[in-house]
Amino acid sequence: MGAMKGQLSGDRVTVDFSQRLITRRFGRREGDRVVLLPEEAAYLVHKGTLEVYDGKKAVDFNDLFSLCDPVRYFVYADLRDRGVRADFGDMGEYLPVSEDDVFETSDLLRRAGKKLAVVDSEAEVTYFLLERFDGTGNHSEELREFEARFANGFFVTDYLELHRKYFYGVQKGNRVVLSIFEALYLMEEGFLSSSVDEEKVLSFGRQNVLNFERRYAVYKDLRERRFMVKTGFKFGSDFRVYEYVRSVSELRHSKYLVKLREAVSMMELACDVRLSSAVNKTVLYPVFRDGRPEYLAVRRVKM
Amino acid sequence: MGAMKGQLSGDRVTVDFSQRLITRRFGRREGDRVVLLPEEAAYLVHKGTLEVYDGKKAVDFNDLFSLCDPVRYFVYADLRDRGVRADFGDMGEYLPVSEDDVFETSDLLRRAGKKLAVVDSEAEVTYFLLERFDGTGNHSEELREFEARFANGFFVTDYLELHRKYFYGVQKGNRVVLSIFEALYLMEEGFLSSSVDEEKVLSFGRQNVLNFERRYAVYKDLRERRFMVKTGFKFGSDFRVYEYVRSVSELRHSKYLVKLREAVSMMELACDVRLSSAVNKTVLYPVFRDGRPEYLAVRRVKM
Repeated sequence: MGAMKGQLSGDRVTVDFSQRLITRRFGRREGDRVVLLPEEAAYLVHKGTLEVYDGKKAVDFNDLFSLCDPVRYFVYADLRDRGVRADFGDMGEYLPVSEDDVFETSDLLRRAGKKLAVVDSEAEVTYFLLERFDGTGNHSEELREFEARFANGFFVTDYLELHRKYFYGVQKGNRVVLSIFEALYLMEEGFLSSSVDEEKVLSFGRQNVLNFERRYAVYKDLRERRFMVKTGFKFGSDFRVYEYVRSVSELRHSKYLVKLREAVSMMELACDVRLSSAVNKTVLYPVFRDGRPEYLAVRRVKM
Repeated sequence: MGAMKGQLSGDRVTVDFSQRLITRRFGRREGDRVVLLPEEAAYLVHKGTLEVYDGKKAVDFNDLFSLCDPVRYFVYADLRDRGVRADFGDMGEYLPVSEDDVFETSDLLRRAGKKLAVVDSEAEVTYFLLERFDGTGNHSEELREFEARFANGFFVTDYLELHRKYFYGVQKGNRVVLSIFEALYLMEEGFLSSSVDEEKVLSFGRQNVLNFERRYAVYKDLRERRFMVKTGFKFGSDFRVYEYVRSVSELRHSKYLVKLREAVSMMELACDVRLSSAVNKTVLYPVFRDGRPEYLAVRRVKM
């Protein structure tokens, strides 16, 4: 079967009515014609299904591609090649973006359920699913009250079980060193008493620790959701999150990495997601609304 | 053997001369006494080797720890526990830093040969070796001259061998799409001719592509060092770098990931290094001097 013939006018290509095009969801019917977007026309030309003329002059793929938004074109063509329909250029749940784009994480959370389709500098498309995360853990523990000394942002205690059994802090010799997040939480919960009060710890944190208030808000929120939360530094994130810890000697892998980012470039997002999946975890971005964190989970989707 | 006894004065602890201390490189001899830094004294108290008094009043580990820079203390103690000496607190090739610290990559390059000793919020220490990278690849290719059409930041050609054999761009059907970096380089080298000139491509890049000039300078420099360079987007980096490509069907893994960062927080550095090592590559940070890139390689060191 020969190629259809279309006429270019502005950035639209018009062809005689074709049931095959309509069935395959190319273009929009207008009377006895089908009107194609430049992305659709370029794709059909690329596939050898369509020939386009401007008057009598042949228009080639490159001419049509020049009329396209390149990001939209590459995503459209990639989806089509994978058998995904995109009605009159409407890519539905897919959001075509460039690797150079930067989004606020709050903006991405609003689009939960959608998939980012990111076009890189070599025109390849990578897909990321945006999901709202609202999970809860299954961690429980029975602490006793204890004392710890505050010094320079760390708390030191000799309550060794706190680490050995409950996985707080790090054991150094016959002492346990707690992070400021852990200690502040245990102070607020009434387990930890110290010569300093909560106000002083907060004030130290605000002055000395990057993003202290938002990091602590996330730590606290995740603990209240019954997760066990530890530093994520070795994974280049703020926290790693366990669904539960029954004993430190039989620790399961943590399931989530939490990374505070107000805005994220697609390259940074690719980095966070790739690292998370390499270590079998999912990255969560906290998004603050009225001071409380909500969470965006991002996963790569293999198409 | 009982613990030595020391007297606190200011933030120094003084003990009677002890050959054992001097041999093990603790403190500095002053006549018939040895003077200890607070980090040294706290460590020896922690180990049970030293008891400290302020006059007659006993001074405990926590009191001494309060006198320390906590980052220096945790690194000092970690090194000592690993058998690494640190004369009078001089940690030699190790640079004690906090996970909250941010450095310019140019500053890190100046410290090539040193190891970052990063203390996280739970007082654990992670080590990163800083190295100057000045490697060269072994890539060669014999291109013919060809034409490509420029549209919207990409170049399209039907010279299929360019991808199949030489690994430029991406093949889409019976076309090859080149990135703007690849195309500009091939234009400058005289292989690619197009209706647009180099000036127009540069001007498009400056207006539309993030960090265009520095990214292109890195692409070009690495090509001149006989590496093959491709987008690193899927690894969350600017470029991935192959020592050579003999054929695309028998491609070896790329060895380096290149990430443009003028400044880097220790958490971001941990992220870049962890991802790179998870995929068996080394991260390189370009540092510009007089407009030309030099490279900092960072690897995690397991102690």
